[in-house]
Amino acid sequence: MITYEFSSKERSLKEIATLATLSNGFISVRGDPEVSKSEFGTFVSGVYCYTPIFYRELVNLPRITPIYLTIDGEPFRPISGETIIKLDTLNGIVYYESILESSIGKLKYESSRIVHKTFKGIFAEEFRFRPINFAGRVCIRLPIELSVSNKSVPPQVHVKLFKIVESDSFNDSYLHVRTEDEIYDVYFKMFAESNDLQLRPYSDENEIGFLGCIDVDPNQAIKVAKKVIVAKEKSTLNKYSEIAKKKTYQELLETHTTAWQKEWKQIGLVIEGDIDFARYLYFNTFHLLQMYDDESDVFLLPARGLHGYGYRGHVFWDADIYSLPFYLFFKPSAAKAMLKYRCKCLQAAKEYATKSNFKGARFPWESADDGYEATPRIVPLDLTGSKTVLIETGELEQHITADVAYAVDLYYTFTGDEQFMEECGLKIIFETARFWSSRVKYDQEKNAYVIEDVIGPDEYHVHVNNNFYTNLLAKHNLELGVKYFELSRQKNNWRKIAEGLTSEEEVQNWRRISQKIYLPCLTNGICEEFEGYLQLPDFKVPEGCIGEKCLPEKIRENIPKTRLIKQADVLAGMFLLKEKFNKEIIAQNFDYYFPRTTHASSLSLPMYAAVLAYLGRTEESFKLLKLAASADLGNLYGNVEDGFHVGSAAGVWTAILFGLAGIHIKNERPTLDPKKISNVKMAFNVTIKGQNVRVEL
Amino acid sequence: MITYEFSSKERSLKEIATLATLSNGFISVRGDPEVSKSEFGTFVSGVYCYTPIFYRELVNLPRITPIYLTIDGEPFRPISGETIIKLDTLNGIVYYESILESSIGKLKYESSRIVHKTFKGIFAEEFRFRPINFAGRVCIRLPIELSVSNKSVPPQVHVKLFKIVESDSFNDSYLHVRTEDEIYDVYFKMFAESNDLQLRPYSDENEIGFLGCIDVDPNQAIKVAKKVIVAKEKSTLNKYSEIAKKKTYQELLETHTTAWQKEWKQIGLVIEGDIDFARYLYFNTFHLLQMYDDESDVFLLPARGLHGYGYRGHVFWDADIYSLPFYLFFKPSAAKAMLKYRCKCLQAAKEYATKSNFKGARFPWESADDGYEATPRIVPLDLTGSKTVLIETGELEQHITADVAYAVDLYYTFTGDEQFMEECGLKIIFETARFWSSRVKYDQEKNAYVIEDVIGPDEYHVHVNNNFYTNLLAKHNLELGVKYFELSRQKNNWRKIAEGLTSEEEVQNWRRISQKIYLPCLTNGICEEFEGYLQLPDFKVPEGCIGEKCLPEKIRENIPKTRLIKQADVLAGMFLLKEKFNKEIIAQNFDYYFPRTTHASSLSLPMYAAVLAYLGRTEESFKLLKLAASADLGNLYGNVEDGFHVGSAAGVWTAILFGLAGIHIKNERPTLDPKKISNVKMAFNVTIKGQNVRVEL
Repeated sequence: MITYEFSSKERSLKEIATLATLSNGFISVRGDPEVSKSEFGTFVSGVYCYTPIFYRELVNLPRITPIYLTIDGEPFRPISGETIIKLDTLNGIVYYESILESSIGKLKYESSRIVHKTFKGIFAEEFRFRPINFAGRVCIRLPIELSVSNKSVPPQVHVKLFKIVESDSFNDSYLHVRTEDEIYDVYFKMFAESNDLQLRPYSDENEIGFLGCIDVDPNQAIKVAKKVIVAKEKSTLNKYSEIAKKKTYQELLETHTTAWQKEWKQIGLVIEGDIDFARYLYFNTFHLLQMYDDESDVFLLPARGLHGYGYRGHVFWDADIYSLPFYLFFKPSAAKAMLKYRCKCLQAAKEYATKSNFKGARFPWESADDGYEATPRIVPLDLTGSKTVLIETGELEQHITADVAYAVDLYYTFTGDEQFMEECGLKIIFETARFWSSRVKYDQEKNAYVIEDVIGPDEYHVHVNNNFYTNLLAKHNLELGVKYFELSRQKNNWRKIAEGLTSEEEVQNWRRISQKIYLPCLTNGICEEFEGYLQLPDFKVPEGCIGEKCLPEKIRENIPKTRLIKQADVLAGMFLLKEKFNKEIIAQNFDYYFPRTTHASSLSLPMYAAVLAYLGRTEESFKLLKLAASADLGNLYGNVEDGFHVGSAAGVWTAILFGLAGIHIKNERPTLDPKKISNVKMAFNVTIKGQNVRVEL
Repeated sequence: MITYEFSSKERSLKEIATLATLSNGFISVRGDPEVSKSEFGTFVSGVYCYTPIFYRELVNLPRITPIYLTIDGEPFRPISGETIIKLDTLNGIVYYESILESSIGKLKYESSRIVHKTFKGIFAEEFRFRPINFAGRVCIRLPIELSVSNKSVPPQVHVKLFKIVESDSFNDSYLHVRTEDEIYDVYFKMFAESNDLQLRPYSDENEIGFLGCIDVDPNQAIKVAKKVIVAKEKSTLNKYSEIAKKKTYQELLETHTTAWQKEWKQIGLVIEGDIDFARYLYFNTFHLLQMYDDESDVFLLPARGLHGYGYRGHVFWDADIYSLPFYLFFKPSAAKAMLKYRCKCLQAAKEYATKSNFKGARFPWESADDGYEATPRIVPLDLTGSKTVLIETGELEQHITADVAYAVDLYYTFTGDEQFMEECGLKIIFETARFWSSRVKYDQEKNAYVIEDVIGPDEYHVHVNNNFYTNLLAKHNLELGVKYFELSRQKNNWRKIAEGLTSEEEVQNWRRISQKIYLPCLTNGICEEFEGYLQLPDFKVPEGCIGEKCLPEKIRENIPKTRLIKQADVLAGMFLLKEKFNKEIIAQNFDYYFPRTTHASSLSLPMYAAVLAYLGRTEESFKLLKLAASADLGNLYGNVEDGFHVGSAAGVWTAILFGLAGIHIKNERPTLDPKKISNVKMAFNVTIKGQNVRVEL
């Protein structure tokens, strides 16, 4: 596979830190150089805390990576611009190298680090240094840093979301922290390893760790390893401490790389003919694989991964619609665990529906660990809070509820996982159908059920009525209610469950409504994104433009008053439910909406690429796909430092799987319809209904 | 005078840090030990920044004090509980001593520090250490720390209010920071001084400073000094840098202590017969003297000094009513500079009046550097902000405007400073009188002018009508308008000014209103604190109780529904304008209100002590006075860590000056009416109308 080299000459360190994030789905550390201070500590999957503005957010936990070298009390610091960070995606290793300097001399510094793929509680790094032009006593400090906090908005505001419960530097370095809301405990332990010098535990107000000094001559190489255990339970801490104590860094590295190589082999990804595309896709695939902790029942997948603060670690529809297919076909257990996150949050979703005067379950637009609405509503733009921005998606972007139901159905369709449906899947299907039956309103004039006052996937237009995507998915959600109720009649295990959740009468009502949901499609074939859309002034995005930056200023300031859209909306609906539309209609709508899309959301390009592939416009599709796949390596959206674009990276796979590979259900059986991309060959192994299938394009 | 010794065995370090704050009115550093990390950096008088919740607040600037010792990279840390901090109030020096330990050994550490009394830009400290039980290479780091920020509410929230503009560690340690709002620049420079070792400049992400190492034997003493220049202009930085470079710590110390001794001599404070009272009063006087920078035109005096975050560095009525008299009689130029702060804010006060649909000038209840209302309105109590407390004083506690006018008149009365009145004093008098003339409402039934919907000094009762204090001071403010207009007829210089500001007709209106301001006094002599006060259920505070802690829980939760009051309100009014009331009425009201006062405000005891002294109840007065004087040393209000109680400390002096010494105006000439306290003798020198007067009690 491919190793990625990032130089601080070419990119900012904050960008590189996102790209070189290492995770095993449990622990995550950004790729900040360990030899410098950083505001980024450690993320532990699922560890959130109450916070101003954002309800709950991922906690920036103590920083475990630092390695500080000093001479006569003076820090060695990397020469700016000389930092090289390498990410080896085959083995899951980040390498760092730099020249460090002090007023006394320079030294060559190299390190490697891993977040262990199978020993989920273990982070380890090893470093070597040798003086270039001096001899002297170099001191090494290996701290866990306690001074990190969460950067909020405006960026001058920081919130410390954990407190120290216990810290012990007498024997080992032991640390026990607790989130400020007292919900989560996180334990740390550290071990130092070196044949070259003795290291002893120490602590300070802001750190705890190991230190030691050694007299070194020019070119004498010193090697030290730092191993940190991170756990949410003391028993796990002890388990992994035993392992880390017994195993050297080299031994840990071996088991780690073996596990990664095995994983890549399983996936069997081969790309030939387009080296750039290959680089993008391996890179994205690596990061997607990193996000899943197969030891956890529940897979909470933040929109920006565990790679940064972006969206504060919240989960969006991206997870269910854009990311789930990747895991569904490569790691079905991960897809299941993603849905189990929704299951865990079902009670909160029911409360949310009730609170909004609806029935059933309403999933929140953004959610954290507890499943309550976590979308910020008023975000201050300056220190006094006199300038704010109002965010209405939490209230209005309601299609998320249908998206979750869609994902449950997709999962069942391609896994046949009866147990999941019995335990929770049916509940989600019925409760969400029930939500929509209470959310729609009968419109006499239209003789149809309408859904008023929403925001669709195109977030430019707010407070709209009958958004195509929302109405279509809501209709589908109601149909799923009917479908699964009918299925439950044929299955002994399901019947009782279904009858406990709903009734023949209610399901009849769902059927009746679903048949009469209003879809704003015109006789000319164009489906209006929402009622009134086509009455807005028209404008087309300059060709090849991604985002809003190349719009004329006057347009940019008035986007909501034009037909410009942020991302695939009508086309997302049509692609997700393609069996409901003939290809000509889809093509016609594509050609209408695509030129009017700014792609300011990173979810846009993958979805359009998927549509093009489905329409057989393979070359066009591949062109978009490649662009979409470059989102993070190419910093396409200018905000890589905030985290990895999970939905976009997985969306590229969605386009490959459902578009290019043409995975679909035919006569109730999954089948493929692979498309050929000229000059590019791709192959990979997917799992469908428990069967391994090699896909070749 | 007296040296105060604080031990970490007896008090928390945060309390000690307030008590051992050093300032010269320009720079202020709390007494946190320099050998440990601390969240408290440096305050520079007048340097504020926009901030969430509190509008603008004092900026926690880079920390200049730290001295870190390490051995083999390991920090020496003070043995907990073994810290002794001494404050020498005669010489303005803070001494620190402690045993510091590391795993390699212990050392004895001693230091002294000053914030130079005359060289306003210079902070200096000197330390000595000697190993107790080891020999080895000890490294010394003398940083300016950049990582401090302002702790906000809830306390997990921190806001960084300055940014680095430039930092240079090549030659000297030079640092230039700017407040986040780009309003203030602050420059730093550091020098290290030692005959024992060489120190060289260095920098790190979070600090800039000097460092060096030395091999030491047991009992070998090492001495080093750190000098930091702080300035708001580069020219001042250079000026003080030259001085600090040339002068040794010892030389700086000498000029500093000489200046302090001269100041104490000027004041000539002698107290005999009560050593505790003497200790309290010297301590308070030292801190009050520290607050004034005689090089600054404007004296912005925060309620908690430059000693802590309390009230975010905001200025209240405390300054004008409780603190001004101390400065008026001991440092008239300081009293003038305090009023110049109000002058500087007059334009903002006029805008405030206009914005609230009134005329003239309305001073804000809390203000920062710019004079706009800075009272927080909604303060979050938890991380999500779901629990908040509403603060209505900003909107309703309007007596501040009359308090400012009162202070201007007091200042003129005892200084005869014509120039100040011409430049600004008359403007304040007329604009504030104009405010009240628009603020009052004519009440037909009462045939009087009423002031509705206010909060009086007793803040327990909100949205009250005709608060005695407010109405009385408003009446006085209108009378001052009349008085100064009439005075201006007799003075050529004033006449033109007065005629430019108001008119005969307007002043007639002020007179008319002032004569008919409603004062809710009953025929039995008791003046009701506000209309309806006497209809509330009665309750008396258990004798000797300060604060709300000894109230029964049921009462404590319902204070606003009882006759309990927080502090002198009716009595404050009566004392400030004692010539309007006969002593019997004042005595009667004292005996009514005092037992119903919780003294939850630190302003309460001094005012009641003043009243008692005026009434000739000298022994009772002295008892209260002594208690009031112990506010900070005795941590009477439990919140010393938030800063020095300036208004309370100065209020004790107000009680001494106007109460015990009986300073008053008789036949238009200032005169004394000293009271004898049994067994206690006091003497001090005051300045009245430019004349030095020795007061002996």
